[in-house]
Amino acid sequence: MPKFSVDVNKAVGHRFTPQKVSYNKRDLILYALSIGIKDELNFLYELDKNFTPFPTYPVGLQLKGDSSDVNLFAETVNAGGPIPGLPEMEPNKMIHGEQTIEILNPLPTSGEFEIHCKVNGVYDKGSGMLLERVNTMVDPKTGKEYCVMTIQTFIIGYGGFGGPKGQKGPSYKPPKDKKPDAIDSSPTSSTQALLYRLSGDYNPLHADPTIAPKVGFERPILHGLCSFGYAAHAIVKHLANNDPKLFKSISVRFTAPVYPGDTLETHMWKVPGENPNETNVVFITKAKERDTIVLANGFGVLKNFGGVAKL
Amino acid sequence: MPKFSVDVNKAVGHRFTPQKVSYNKRDLILYALSIGIKDELNFLYELDKNFTPFPTYPVGLQLKGDSSDVNLFAETVNAGGPIPGLPEMEPNKMIHGEQTIEILNPLPTSGEFEIHCKVNGVYDKGSGMLLERVNTMVDPKTGKEYCVMTIQTFIIGYGGFGGPKGQKGPSYKPPKDKKPDAIDSSPTSSTQALLYRLSGDYNPLHADPTIAPKVGFERPILHGLCSFGYAAHAIVKHLANNDPKLFKSISVRFTAPVYPGDTLETHMWKVPGENPNETNVVFITKAKERDTIVLANGFGVLKNFGGVAKL
Repeated sequence: MPKFSVDVNKAVGHRFTPQKVSYNKRDLILYALSIGIKDELNFLYELDKNFTPFPTYPVGLQLKGDSSDVNLFAETVNAGGPIPGLPEMEPNKMIHGEQTIEILNPLPTSGEFEIHCKVNGVYDKGSGMLLERVNTMVDPKTGKEYCVMTIQTFIIGYGGFGGPKGQKGPSYKPPKDKKPDAIDSSPTSSTQALLYRLSGDYNPLHADPTIAPKVGFERPILHGLCSFGYAAHAIVKHLANNDPKLFKSISVRFTAPVYPGDTLETHMWKVPGENPNETNVVFITKAKERDTIVLANGFGVLKNFGGVAKL
Repeated sequence: MPKFSVDVNKAVGHRFTPQKVSYNKRDLILYALSIGIKDELNFLYELDKNFTPFPTYPVGLQLKGDSSDVNLFAETVNAGGPIPGLPEMEPNKMIHGEQTIEILNPLPTSGEFEIHCKVNGVYDKGSGMLLERVNTMVDPKTGKEYCVMTIQTFIIGYGGFGGPKGQKGPSYKPPKDKKPDAIDSSPTSSTQALLYRLSGDYNPLHADPTIAPKVGFERPILHGLCSFGYAAHAIVKHLANNDPKLFKSISVRFTAPVYPGDTLETHMWKVPGENPNETNVVFITKAKERDTIVLANGFGVLKNFGGVAKL
């Protein structure tokens, strides 16, 4: 029997107190630079006539909150307070497993919003607990929802509590007999994590060379959500003519650490889907020099309007 | 006769309304990254036990003000309002000529301060006007002065008004018969100016490819004060054992534009001085690939305590 108790029914459906978040144009430019965008001034220069957020920006907002300064590190799972029915869990046992974002309405270039966070599932995977939360970015004045994000966190050592195993999620495998429709190769720099963390995730794991070895890494690793941004940008750049209005959603599984300095190579395949107005994309991202898949089960959906992203 | 009138006596000694400025730890880290610091966590990581501002940080404060967002571009000379006795002058005729900073007291890692700006001199150089201002960073609550900065701006086409020519400033030439005591070679990236501008200088000249050619540059140029930061870091790194407490002052003349992507090569010579507790450094900085001197007449003063920077 585990030394902790879990009440799945109490946890699932729990809604955290809405969290205040905010961002400005400078935050958006900093984020775009930190996910390796170099050429597209519509993401990098506030006076560009098409200036707009890169659409994955909101995934970091929960940790940023409404501060424009560095924050003490708060694990995502604790950001909105404890979860009823779940034990207190050690932050360094938590691994970011999967992440999605779907854009519901075009993101403003600045503003004050709320993240509404709900526990969607608590699963017993034997060696650990899988916790799934859903975050929605909302304008509290109008109730307008901008995007919805699903975060799966695997918590090592907190399994075996007799809970539901959960269903296997969808599997997005690259077609075996087809060359990628595009390959993007983008370097990260040795300071990539130090830059990316200024968007809100100040976990010392990404900066402090004395901490990384204690949790099993040679040296500080890049944020999973930084690689996530690189991959999303690769898709928008190569398959959506760099038009963020064509971006609908993306989901990935984090499979291996990325070290600052690695080159991220994203392989993308357009695949048939059911909606004739959308193009589906399956992708993987490798750390090129180490020939290691760092993002797997990648799936993106692009809108076809204007025909640009058409299959 | 020029079409404008200048009353030197009215202008010199004019004090601008004190300007509110502020910064936080995130601003300091962003600045350090934007002047090419890669390895020294004391400038890059707020939880490092020696975390401290890189000492040239305050040179950008006047344009940053107390905003944490992008600002509409305001030329330095206009930041504190018009100057009595001087005509209104076109911002795109102004060239940043020389810059100094001297640290009077160790800089805090965050806070709200004032910049006290005074007109120090107005000179008639024939082809233009040379305007010298002195900025002091002050804690308005205690009156404590942290640093003093001199800015010389050359304003093309505003000379010939019959004013004083001004004395020639000191000349700091590299010793002819001596190899440099150190050479630092640091790359800038293609996005260096886009990153540096987030510290407060949002002049479109550094970002907008349609504007740069209108004022005589192939493409957007790097901020002079970004190269200035690279040079100061080169000196602190190579001749002061990376200890910012040994940094006293630095002054440079901007002699040619730097393009993002250039490698900045700083050549440093220790030279004899009058104060046995200080080490004087003469330096130049080149854009390596173009073999062009971009910072000339460079002069730095390091303190000797601990003996680290001793001649």
